Amino acid sequence: MAAHAGAGGVRVLGLDPGSLRTGWGVVEPGVGGRGLKLVACGVLAPPPRDPLPRRLRHIFEGLGQVISQHQPREMAVEGVFTAQNARTALILGQARGVALLAGAMAGLETHEYSPAAVKKALVGGGRAAKEQVRTMVEALLKQSLPAHYSQDVSDALALAVCHLHSRELKSRGLS
Amino acid sequence: MAAHAGAGGVRVLGLDPGSLRTGWGVVEPGVGGRGLKLVACGVLAPPPRDPLPRRLRHIFEGLGQVISQHQPREMAVEGVFTAQNARTALILGQARGVALLAGAMAGLETHEYSPAAVKKALVGGGRAAKEQVRTMVEALLKQSLPAHYSQDVSDALALAVCHLHSRELKSRGLS
Repeated sequence: MAAHAGAGGVRVLGLDPGSLRTGWGVVEPGVGGRGLKLVACGVLAPPPRDPLPRRLRHIFEGLGQVISQHQPREMAVEGVFTAQNARTALILGQARGVALLAGAMAGLETHEYSPAAVKKALVGGGRAAKEQVRTMVEALLKQSLPAHYSQDVSDALALAVCHLHSRELKSRGLS
Repeated sequence: MAAHAGAGGVRVLGLDPGSLRTGWGVVEPGVGGRGLKLVACGVLAPPPRDPLPRRLRHIFEGLGQVISQHQPREMAVEGVFTAQNARTALILGQARGVALLAGAMAGLETHEYSPAAVKKALVGGGRAAKEQVRTMVEALLKQSLPAHYSQDVSDALALAVCHLHSRELKSRGLS
């Protein structure tokens, strides 16, 4: 049996890239298409004092290992629509570029969702607090995330859940 | 004899990354340390309609080929200090992240120079026009760049020249 989910389901990698912490989470539909199943999740945190090129390499190689170990077929990242200052956007862009590259090198299809779309898919409203997102992620995956897991992980899982939700709606002709 | 420049010299890859066009140029000290020699230069231009992850892969793989073919030992990129809007900075950051990663994967040492430092090293003033930079690059490398080569290429070569200049000053204890 293949490592990834069989017909009717697809294993999805959700990503929340950052140059210091990149959250990731792999989710698939539950048995018989009922509910959702957490496959694995974690954070890539390169040594903060490493020079930027080495931190980017840490992220790239770490994501390569995650993909090769858990065999997702699609990837979901945040579409960055929020206004930020140029310096923050440049730093975020560097990590995001490397994360998208890791997906492209593995042949993953990439989908983007706005922060509002993610919140709406999970909590029903586009203005939910970050804590609500985590609570909903835990409820949907029927699993508590370790307390030390930061928001990066729940945001990455929320993106994967949002993408599976959107796929499900599309397959039923509802979107 | 090794492909890269021998003792006393070092082959440098200058890069001007962008998501649509990434200019690159490889320069080394001339024979006996006199002057500078253009080894090779070009532009990586992924198909503009390709999705972003595929464009980033094009840049990454293209730079990997450039590095493996021309064997530079150090890399010079622009340190981005100019204020830009967040959207432009994010797009630039994605290409820059992938370019820095390509260097890190090959074990290249990366150096950053501000646009003003590059202009000062080449033209003697931090406020030179872009055309002056190209003219000086051509004069220093004793070679005309093909007319269809865009500013991306002369900017990449200018970064390589600026880095070699800075190395030379350091080796003489002048900076």
